[in-house]
Amino acid sequence: MRFVLVAGCTRTAEIDGISAAGADTDVMVHTPSADLEILEYGKPTSSPVVPVSPTGCPTPAVVSRAVRELLEFETLGVDAGLGSPTCAPTVTVGEESGEDVRRSRPVPGAEDVFENATRLGRALPDDEIVVGETIPGGTTTALGVLTALGERTTVSSSLPENPLALKRDVVNDALTASDLSEGDAAGDPIAAVSRVGDPVLAGVAGTTIGALESGTDVTLAGGTQLAAAAALVRHAGVDDPMSLATTSFVAADETAAIEKSAADLDLALTVTDPEFADGDHPAMDAYVAGEAKEGVGMGGALALADRAGVSMAAVRDRVVDVYERITEAEPAVKP
Amino acid sequence: MRFVLVAGCTRTAEIDGISAAGADTDVMVHTPSADLEILEYGKPTSSPVVPVSPTGCPTPAVVSRAVRELLEFETLGVDAGLGSPTCAPTVTVGEESGEDVRRSRPVPGAEDVFENATRLGRALPDDEIVVGETIPGGTTTALGVLTALGERTTVSSSLPENPLALKRDVVNDALTASDLSEGDAAGDPIAAVSRVGDPVLAGVAGTTIGALESGTDVTLAGGTQLAAAAALVRHAGVDDPMSLATTSFVAADETAAIEKSAADLDLALTVTDPEFADGDHPAMDAYVAGEAKEGVGMGGALALADRAGVSMAAVRDRVVDVYERITEAEPAVKP
Repeated sequence: MRFVLVAGCTRTAEIDGISAAGADTDVMVHTPSADLEILEYGKPTSSPVVPVSPTGCPTPAVVSRAVRELLEFETLGVDAGLGSPTCAPTVTVGEESGEDVRRSRPVPGAEDVFENATRLGRALPDDEIVVGETIPGGTTTALGVLTALGERTTVSSSLPENPLALKRDVVNDALTASDLSEGDAAGDPIAAVSRVGDPVLAGVAGTTIGALESGTDVTLAGGTQLAAAAALVRHAGVDDPMSLATTSFVAADETAAIEKSAADLDLALTVTDPEFADGDHPAMDAYVAGEAKEGVGMGGALALADRAGVSMAAVRDRVVDVYERITEAEPAVKP
Repeated sequence: MRFVLVAGCTRTAEIDGISAAGADTDVMVHTPSADLEILEYGKPTSSPVVPVSPTGCPTPAVVSRAVRELLEFETLGVDAGLGSPTCAPTVTVGEESGEDVRRSRPVPGAEDVFENATRLGRALPDDEIVVGETIPGGTTTALGVLTALGERTTVSSSLPENPLALKRDVVNDALTASDLSEGDAAGDPIAAVSRVGDPVLAGVAGTTIGALESGTDVTLAGGTQLAAAAALVRHAGVDDPMSLATTSFVAADETAAIEKSAADLDLALTVTDPEFADGDHPAMDAYVAGEAKEGVGMGGALALADRAGVSMAAVRDRVVDVYERITEAEPAVKP
């Protein structure tokens, strides 16, 4: 088993009120780079910020790293278009961050990202991969892609109150800018990503398609963004079995409708509850209050812990360790 | 402990008779990319070739991977200027392969590589790193750098008969092309690399300097190329303790004079003998006959096995496993 984290940026995240994946829109560009470092090294090593939400909720990378420390699984970082440097090792499948989806062609390199990621997925020697994402603003671009494909248009949010009206406005503007109507990109995943998506969706979908082609089982680790990636895989004509592993926080989010999306896309759904209310700690309280919910493959990491017989209490203890390490640590390098 | 492999290319390897790090000069450009994949995944996953010498001697990546499978240490791939794509994750510190050293400025980006690698080394959170290299033709560029720095000009070879006269001719041409005499680059490691070196030497030296600055112990894993990297570190004014861990094959090579070089550069030398004569297997026979000798951090990996109490018999058994896997495997992807 290899845990694959596809990372990148979209300037859609700069729209006020869209994302909580960073303390403010200026530092959000560093979140995916820091998430890769936390997963690889246990703390941000060159990124100038520790990713927290405006209210201080830590990045879900803390949870995925905690599980990695307990299970010692192998990881693979994939750069689908980062907006800032990282000292974590990656395979590059995309050179450019996505533009604001309200532009006419926010991901001009979508086809290349798909192809590079497919080649990478095909090359992986593993029996099984678990694929997560880190891209602030990603639920809005996921909504864009789901709309363009004509799939169920339900997405979750890293904010306690999902700014759905704002997201729908942004997606409507995006569709208009790209001269698309709902369902116009059905069967054409590259068009959906290049015109109303983000590069990470292309990276996840491509990696998945390549892995499935070469006989590797794929679990998509996350919520509605991963459902959008699964929709891209289905619209590429791939009918292989796939799993979706998410958190109880996404499952409890009515705006996400994750069970229905999973059923639509023929995904075997696993929901894992880390019982963070029992943690009673700042690393976990914000999740209980409805923030973050998912990201960085958190739901998949929790499912792996559960499958390995590691208790959620042990996961929570390690989450506290990682949280204390990353919030106390000064980054070693200031760019 | 983290095992760091700095990989790249120099067109110096295309000079007939210089290197055995590939079946012929056309495929040698793939050797570093394949070595990274073997270390990371246990076999080449996208590289079109399995790196073997013209006589069939397998890449020392087989040995380092074998030890990794036994010890399960963490690895980091560093791209200092690869000449072909790889599906192994890397941190990129250099964008370009080196030109033939007989050109006037074969590594124009040397300063950037040094700086990027130093930043990476500083960012690593580890108490200890072991740093190896993979670059065909690297002993010739090492000879160039040692000459330009005014250090002992002894280097080993991946060939049983070291083509020293050829290397000296190439280095003399290189010095002439760059208008340098022996010792002219003393105290100026960037000049030495940019004018008569290769990008991997800059990557190894920079990573080492950054790691030492941030309190990380460094073992240079290899033979005379790593000694040349150590010379660059010393000529950058860094006096910290450093270790050099190499194989008995390099230690037995009189043309390498590795004990003297280590003493010159104040390096604590460890020599590990994998007792390949006891292996009596094609994966090891060529080493006994004097081929390859070192590379891909092999000497450092063997020293780690020894320190962990893993017997050389166990290492040899695993070397056979990895060898059989990589020689039987068809690459999953043909570019």
